[in-house]
Amino acid sequence: MPEFFTVLPPDEALAQLFDHLSPTPHPESIPTADALDRVTFEAIHAPASLPAFDRSTMDGYAVRAPDTFGASQSLPAYLTVVGEVPMGRAPPFEVKAAQAALIHTGGMLPPGADSVVMIEVTQKARENEIEVLKAVAVGENVLKVGEDIAEGAEMLPAGHWLRAQDLGGLSALGFTQIKVARRPRVALLATGDEVVPPEVEAGPGQVRDVNSVSVAGQIARAGGIPLRRGIVGDDFDALKAAAESALAEADALVLSAGSSVSVRDVTADVVDGLGKPGVIVHGVAVKPGKPTILAVADGKPVFGLPGNPVSAMVIADLFVVPTVYRMQGCQTPPLRQSVKAKLTHNIASQAGRVDFIPARLVTRDGELWAEPVFGKSNQIFTLVFADGMVVVPRDVNGVSEGEAVEVRLF
Amino acid sequence: MPEFFTVLPPDEALAQLFDHLSPTPHPESIPTADALDRVTFEAIHAPASLPAFDRSTMDGYAVRAPDTFGASQSLPAYLTVVGEVPMGRAPPFEVKAAQAALIHTGGMLPPGADSVVMIEVTQKARENEIEVLKAVAVGENVLKVGEDIAEGAEMLPAGHWLRAQDLGGLSALGFTQIKVARRPRVALLATGDEVVPPEVEAGPGQVRDVNSVSVAGQIARAGGIPLRRGIVGDDFDALKAAAESALAEADALVLSAGSSVSVRDVTADVVDGLGKPGVIVHGVAVKPGKPTILAVADGKPVFGLPGNPVSAMVIADLFVVPTVYRMQGCQTPPLRQSVKAKLTHNIASQAGRVDFIPARLVTRDGELWAEPVFGKSNQIFTLVFADGMVVVPRDVNGVSEGEAVEVRLF
Repeated sequence: MPEFFTVLPPDEALAQLFDHLSPTPHPESIPTADALDRVTFEAIHAPASLPAFDRSTMDGYAVRAPDTFGASQSLPAYLTVVGEVPMGRAPPFEVKAAQAALIHTGGMLPPGADSVVMIEVTQKARENEIEVLKAVAVGENVLKVGEDIAEGAEMLPAGHWLRAQDLGGLSALGFTQIKVARRPRVALLATGDEVVPPEVEAGPGQVRDVNSVSVAGQIARAGGIPLRRGIVGDDFDALKAAAESALAEADALVLSAGSSVSVRDVTADVVDGLGKPGVIVHGVAVKPGKPTILAVADGKPVFGLPGNPVSAMVIADLFVVPTVYRMQGCQTPPLRQSVKAKLTHNIASQAGRVDFIPARLVTRDGELWAEPVFGKSNQIFTLVFADGMVVVPRDVNGVSEGEAVEVRLF
Repeated sequence: MPEFFTVLPPDEALAQLFDHLSPTPHPESIPTADALDRVTFEAIHAPASLPAFDRSTMDGYAVRAPDTFGASQSLPAYLTVVGEVPMGRAPPFEVKAAQAALIHTGGMLPPGADSVVMIEVTQKARENEIEVLKAVAVGENVLKVGEDIAEGAEMLPAGHWLRAQDLGGLSALGFTQIKVARRPRVALLATGDEVVPPEVEAGPGQVRDVNSVSVAGQIARAGGIPLRRGIVGDDFDALKAAAESALAEADALVLSAGSSVSVRDVTADVVDGLGKPGVIVHGVAVKPGKPTILAVADGKPVFGLPGNPVSAMVIADLFVVPTVYRMQGCQTPPLRQSVKAKLTHNIASQAGRVDFIPARLVTRDGELWAEPVFGKSNQIFTLVFADGMVVVPRDVNGVSEGEAVEVRLF
């Protein structure tokens, strides 16, 4: 491990981590109906055209368009009705010149017909005869074969994050199973002699583990499987053993490190010894969250998060979440949700680092305002009482009341 | 059922539906670690103060602040070091006048001490003596008892949508189980003689069911449990029987209605007969999605969605999703994700209705642009190839190229 680490801006730090990571997602086949928020393992092409037949998009009459040319209110075209298109079956008749067939939305165009006249621009002349009061163009009110998607076309690329409509599109083409990337298993280990599990009564000097639960939620949202592996004391050998064993059964490891300098140094030494190349980034220009460790151990990402709950969530959001998507081969992670709002108070900041400040969103005169929830980064409730975090970019020295800021929703 | 329905703007339609719905969420107790995206059933108060003891927020020395008053580089204060605060235990000593104790971040302040001097502004004078080079104020670098949250304070209100930090906050106070609203069971029924299940080979004139899968995804995202109850033909009695049986085992019912007028009328009649008061809204001023039915049957919401896949998703987004949150008693549903973007093309629209147009987001010169994916509302792939939908508000007649629009992400 080099002796000296430069504190990096978060985007550069992530890029450096990614430079050392070439995750190869593993495929698994699951029911399409269960594939929401999963990531496609490979590109999927349409095995057939959709629709597979010309379909009416309106209630009306299937006709040959030229038969309606010139038709108007005062000079209607007269067509003979030869039948009604059954839903869900091929019509058992043809539409010839000067003929029409009653058709419903979604019905299959009979042979011979090339367009549909909306019912609203027709009227009954006599039994089996209609007047068409307006001309239609060829193809009008018809969804042509392959107009939704053509046979052989790429429906979804590899590495595509699956949304509700994607599952619908897959179903339309008969995909009831789909190959997705396996969910990465991310082990979580909390450290600190003062930390006890949430189910334990905290004695004098003790605090319950917050980060293993909150960061687990962030990992799960990104599609990972969090594996909570408990708490280790501030001891090099114990931490090393626990980290090795957790990493062996997982695809990634997140250590929520103690917050004192001595403990952080121990964590960095342990992380660096887990595998090659070891620590990539030690320290990021983010407040809160500076004492962050990003590492790669024999192909697996390892994160040393600051111990403070707010810092841990900020750093997990910036580094762990994008990595979990990347481990699924995801090329199009969902857009990180944020809103623009005006600041209710001045915020001081320091150029050269990105500041995150918990804030509540309030509406004033129909406008969105961000009201900072001031607090220390060891106060989890500043984030519980907030809707998100104001992001103060690297290159500014603070933001004034009334200025527009980005609020990352948490 | 009244004979005539006015087509309502979507917000008014939803308000009318909600006027007839007083859902009473049912509680269930689940592990806090599994409660992400669930909704609190009742308000939760802090059973104890957090932190439970004064904690150091820095590495340094616990002192009595007055002992440092006036201290400077040139005139340091000399303090005797009486010990080191152990992590996770109460310090077994007191800090008296002119004394200090080594303390780590997160350590418990010893009795007598009221503040922490950062290690950086101290230096060792001799064995067991330090020089303090800068004064601290009382309480400086200390997180006081209850400063994160005070005993008895409301941690989370009832009807709160649970995020990662909320699970962290609950864990900090020892809540390993939490009472949340039961997930509403929403039955889905597709109708249409032409519709076949996704696993079936579609014959001539047939199409596979898309809506039961895509809308199920939307329901699941909102916290509901979708129950896919198959496909019914265009027959009043069959639809009535299927709808009654589906509604009996569920908390809500979504019918993806056929798209032809005759089938829609059958659906409306069936829905109206399911219970009191029956159909509340028939027709909304939304494109696509006009032929929407909103109903309440003996306290359970019933939705008649248009059959077209894009329309069905738009209407589910506008009405089903907010209702599923409401059924969980959710007062703070997650903000509907949308972005502002500039339009790449003119879009025509009709004042008096809200238009939704599928669009892809592209970045040009660092700015976000929305590029409409033109297509018919029966083309599911317009939404698959889109990132979201441009919303053209009710009161405008169209939007010009370069104008900023809201894009609801789908």
